[in-house]
Amino acid sequence: MFETLIDIESLQRLFNPQSIAIIGASTDPQKIGGRPLALLQRQGFAGAIYPVNPASDRVQGLPAWANVADIPGPVDLAIIAVPGKLVEGALQACAAKGIGGAIIFSSGFSEVGETGVDAQQRLLAIARRTGIRVLGPNCMGVVNFTRAMPATFHPAFAASKMTAGNIGLVSQSGAFGGFSHYLAQDRGVSFSYLITTGNEADVELADGLAFLAADPSTKVILAYMEGCRNGPKLLEALELARRNRKPVVMVKLGSSEAGAAAAASHTAALAGSDEVFDAVLRQYGVYRASSVEEFFDIGLACSVGKLPPDARVGLVTPSGGMGVLMADDASRRGLDVAAMPQQAQRKIRDIIPFAGTQNPIDATGQVLSDLSILKQVADIVVTEGDYSSLVFFEGALARTQPSSPLADTWIEVARRHPDTLLSVVGLNRLEDRVRLQQAGIPVFEEPTHATRAVSALRFFARTFAKPWQSPSELQCQSQAGTLEAKRYSEVDALALLSSAGFPVVEHRLVNSATEAVEAAKCIDQPVVMKVVSPDILHKSDIGGVKLNLRGEGAVADAYESIMAVAKQAAPNARLDGCLVAPMVSNGVEVILGTYRDPTFGPVVMFGLGGIFVEVLKDVTFRVAPFGIEEARSMVGEIRGAAMLEGQRGQPPADVEALAQALSRLSVFAKQHESSLESIDINPFLVLPEGQGAVALDAVLVTAD
Amino acid sequence: MFETLIDIESLQRLFNPQSIAIIGASTDPQKIGGRPLALLQRQGFAGAIYPVNPASDRVQGLPAWANVADIPGPVDLAIIAVPGKLVEGALQACAAKGIGGAIIFSSGFSEVGETGVDAQQRLLAIARRTGIRVLGPNCMGVVNFTRAMPATFHPAFAASKMTAGNIGLVSQSGAFGGFSHYLAQDRGVSFSYLITTGNEADVELADGLAFLAADPSTKVILAYMEGCRNGPKLLEALELARRNRKPVVMVKLGSSEAGAAAAASHTAALAGSDEVFDAVLRQYGVYRASSVEEFFDIGLACSVGKLPPDARVGLVTPSGGMGVLMADDASRRGLDVAAMPQQAQRKIRDIIPFAGTQNPIDATGQVLSDLSILKQVADIVVTEGDYSSLVFFEGALARTQPSSPLADTWIEVARRHPDTLLSVVGLNRLEDRVRLQQAGIPVFEEPTHATRAVSALRFFARTFAKPWQSPSELQCQSQAGTLEAKRYSEVDALALLSSAGFPVVEHRLVNSATEAVEAAKCIDQPVVMKVVSPDILHKSDIGGVKLNLRGEGAVADAYESIMAVAKQAAPNARLDGCLVAPMVSNGVEVILGTYRDPTFGPVVMFGLGGIFVEVLKDVTFRVAPFGIEEARSMVGEIRGAAMLEGQRGQPPADVEALAQALSRLSVFAKQHESSLESIDINPFLVLPEGQGAVALDAVLVTAD
Repeated sequence: MFETLIDIESLQRLFNPQSIAIIGASTDPQKIGGRPLALLQRQGFAGAIYPVNPASDRVQGLPAWANVADIPGPVDLAIIAVPGKLVEGALQACAAKGIGGAIIFSSGFSEVGETGVDAQQRLLAIARRTGIRVLGPNCMGVVNFTRAMPATFHPAFAASKMTAGNIGLVSQSGAFGGFSHYLAQDRGVSFSYLITTGNEADVELADGLAFLAADPSTKVILAYMEGCRNGPKLLEALELARRNRKPVVMVKLGSSEAGAAAAASHTAALAGSDEVFDAVLRQYGVYRASSVEEFFDIGLACSVGKLPPDARVGLVTPSGGMGVLMADDASRRGLDVAAMPQQAQRKIRDIIPFAGTQNPIDATGQVLSDLSILKQVADIVVTEGDYSSLVFFEGALARTQPSSPLADTWIEVARRHPDTLLSVVGLNRLEDRVRLQQAGIPVFEEPTHATRAVSALRFFARTFAKPWQSPSELQCQSQAGTLEAKRYSEVDALALLSSAGFPVVEHRLVNSATEAVEAAKCIDQPVVMKVVSPDILHKSDIGGVKLNLRGEGAVADAYESIMAVAKQAAPNARLDGCLVAPMVSNGVEVILGTYRDPTFGPVVMFGLGGIFVEVLKDVTFRVAPFGIEEARSMVGEIRGAAMLEGQRGQPPADVEALAQALSRLSVFAKQHESSLESIDINPFLVLPEGQGAVALDAVLVTAD
Repeated sequence: MFETLIDIESLQRLFNPQSIAIIGASTDPQKIGGRPLALLQRQGFAGAIYPVNPASDRVQGLPAWANVADIPGPVDLAIIAVPGKLVEGALQACAAKGIGGAIIFSSGFSEVGETGVDAQQRLLAIARRTGIRVLGPNCMGVVNFTRAMPATFHPAFAASKMTAGNIGLVSQSGAFGGFSHYLAQDRGVSFSYLITTGNEADVELADGLAFLAADPSTKVILAYMEGCRNGPKLLEALELARRNRKPVVMVKLGSSEAGAAAAASHTAALAGSDEVFDAVLRQYGVYRASSVEEFFDIGLACSVGKLPPDARVGLVTPSGGMGVLMADDASRRGLDVAAMPQQAQRKIRDIIPFAGTQNPIDATGQVLSDLSILKQVADIVVTEGDYSSLVFFEGALARTQPSSPLADTWIEVARRHPDTLLSVVGLNRLEDRVRLQQAGIPVFEEPTHATRAVSALRFFARTFAKPWQSPSELQCQSQAGTLEAKRYSEVDALALLSSAGFPVVEHRLVNSATEAVEAAKCIDQPVVMKVVSPDILHKSDIGGVKLNLRGEGAVADAYESIMAVAKQAAPNARLDGCLVAPMVSNGVEVILGTYRDPTFGPVVMFGLGGIFVEVLKDVTFRVAPFGIEEARSMVGEIRGAAMLEGQRGQPPADVEALAQALSRLSVFAKQHESSLESIDINPFLVLPEGQGAVALDAVLVTAD
């Protein structure tokens, strides 16, 4: 049975409570303890609200209690807005009352250094002991839009009645949470939940993400992450989102060194190595945004639009230029700006003589003066162009003309073609934008943001369509093992890999010149000989490797010479003898490796040999374990991937065998997680198609 | 004397007229012929306006004339808004009247195919013959904001009084021109001129760009280009902009194939090879934008801000996360997110105990409640941080608080620190945004757009500070020459390059085995021998190259063998003999080349040899001629540049000699522009630092 790290059920009372106690409820609605009460009443939260304030009988019009214990009846959620020093006691009282979850606004915990860390640990201890779930401390709370519940002190929720949407947002930063509400409003979209996790004493971003992945009112998840301390938990949440076909869009900070330093100091969380993090997101089909506007634009597209089944996109504009700009961007992002069928092109020219009809379709200024022409063109393009996505650029039309009839036109087009993803780019008024988006049409102001959004939706369509062996499945299939705690020689390492089904070069360990000659004879082709010792890592550097040996004399001499230099160079090394193996070279040299990432555990690396790794740092990563499909993607995403397709008259390499090996290595690494530090297989030779691949050398280091 | 292609003076009457005739002026202000008259009157153009309309005495309240010839007094500009067929006659009448410039709205010219092309040619002929400058046909006209002159039919200028700004925009697309006005208004900036060039019968985008480069009211130039037919003219305009220190921001369409096809069909202009175009923009210090919002954001930054003298940027936020996001983006863009001095950090902590003080500076939520704290922090950061740029992220502050006092705070900070480039990111109301921008503070809504803008301003600062040998200077220094019209063998090519001061390998041409042995003796190291024939391009493929030859016997045998295979493989080839050269290999192999680009003339290519070119297409270009500084940039911008720094224990390569050679090759290519088709120098061997570089092989093809 696979052990789960996240308990979604226990979060229900925290995020979706029937009753809320506010510890430290203030009579001043502008104070941090007064604001949630004011906001909850302002937005009309339908559950019970219990202000707790020892100094007043009534707070902001509601009866107040001196202690949590005094509250009559059960309480699901407590908002704790008291000075840091009083938090621990308050939390204990909540737990004693049987409250299911607590939101702690108060600061003065891990963000202020050592004493704060200890205090925060004590909060976690209470949560673990009593089962109460704790959000924060130092967080901005939770807004449950589906229940009109702003359990927060952020003033953003005072302004207007909130509307529920289908975007679930989880953020480690509280300030970003409040900011987000304005950004969503400006775009005419809204949230199902807005969860801020702050210092994450107990509930982490991953918990919130998993909650949203399971929540039926949430269609798309936006995750704003500053640092990840618990990799496996995040992976579990991402796997759940993927299983439930929920697109996840993420901003993960700390991709540069300057950024990483600040992220660590801010959240007191470790920013994992960014390259590994990036690989994790690719592996789990998460869209990583690098700006706030991208984050929200892609979220909007997922919230409003649909996932296109193929990459064909049609682009319609009233002027050529913006069509070309979008075509450039779409092509760069891997969309297919396929030409219209000839017949459809003729039909459009029948309506608009000087139209550009290939794709982008330049409907010319004529459409500006007659929306019915726009509708006709749209019908032809959608019906006969066979595009799964269509982007309409309006230009300034929504400003030069009344904007509503224009929106009506698009809505009618969308109704007539319900299977097509329509997007509109223009300068629409917010109310028209909302109408368009309610009709399933994402709206943008920037042409390339529309093509970027289509490509993101396509990314999720591909992600969900891809055969995927989930890490948990792969893990279940194989048994955990423990490596013998010893120093592994090359021969030991190759033997171990071989026994795990990993292809290694045929080789023999010999202990005399005679045995070496004997071994070379059996191999019947030029051989390579290498010193075998767990204590000598850089065999070439000391002259412990001889290549391309032919004939008994050369082999015997090589044995003596290798043993002599090894004894001289490393007098205290354990010498196991010499390895004799055939000289293989008709393939592409690559490097495979695995090591333990502090956040995500065993990670597998892949790269091409030589300058690709040394000069271009052209490598890629995956978290172990992963299936062959994922391994294939991995092979395809390095810059020098063309080397495997056959260069300079060479045959294509056996990429299938390479992918097989990568997946197998990943499973091996995961199985031996507890005792394995790292493996380097360099070179791993990928032979021509159909001939497989072999490890020519391996270095294995066990964990201390 | 260097011949100029652009006559800016002749454009004055077109873009900056005292009097305007409108041919085809309509009494209906909604019609294309009625709108410019309505707009000019609405905006209060101060010059004379003469409607020309044979059917009415008065048009829209002004006296009208039946013919242009009837207008009393001189006319600078004519707007021609008559059906396509009548345009030629109208233009002739304008020229006869002595009018200086004509704007032709009418369509039906090169955009509709062959007959239109002919008609457009006739317009150009009139312009050439009479000196009248022609804008269009099929354009949206010109808006001169400095004179409240909307010589256009675009409805965007009907809405409100226009304000003059300092952004000069020139666009081949008319629709984009109108759209731009809204985008600028939304950002609180404005234009000096907005010029649309349409079909470009006479006046091209380059002419408009040069006009703006010389115009004192224009601080920054935005150029929107669909296709470039006349490369040299564009280069001349860009050189003028650079000389006058005017930042140029450009959108150039057609970077993908799908895009290029549509751009060509739309403007009937040839989209040049995008890689070369991109190189031209780098070479001339033009910022290339890939989206409309980037185009306007960078334009805004240049319009409002100043150029920072170094890359040090300080980032201040009320919450850590957005600071990290900006730090990530800034670092990625090459800005220096340098840490604050320790003492300054202490000062900030004295004010805000839990502030993040390194950089980004996290001023925490405390600044939200007290703007005076924000001011204090800003002063410390600017004064003691030694940053030339500072970005303030406001979060949602401008929405949660009254927005004007916040703007006042920034304006005060900017006044106190006039040498620092301040930028603000927030959700400001337009009127506050305008106030901030008038105080020299660019305002953005997206955090990474602020860092992108700072990096763009830094890009222009570097561009203008860089020692630059302008192409025209380089061209003046050298004499044009003509190559002998013959087929060049390798020996001919090497000799020619050598005589031009280009380093080539020591080599001898021999015509017998005896001569070969003699030559090899003089060289006194292993030699390489190659067949010499202008008719054999792929010498290796036929066995015409022998490497690493030692000893008389080997050399003599090689001679006979090479001549034999050459005769067999190419019986009709002219055989000049064999080339004998030393075997040189202690360097990095690179490829230099030059060819004639259809738009820009001679272009120089540089790349590393082997897989870098073959697999990774890792090459870069420059338009010839260019100086050594530019050659150095060229060398540094390929992905594999680290190969030249010394890999695997190799010494660093002589990059200076390489840059020297690239510059020299570029001058040679320009000098022989008329008779040279291409040169390939492959390999060009860059020896260790201080030892120079040599061409080992060269193929030269003359123009037909």
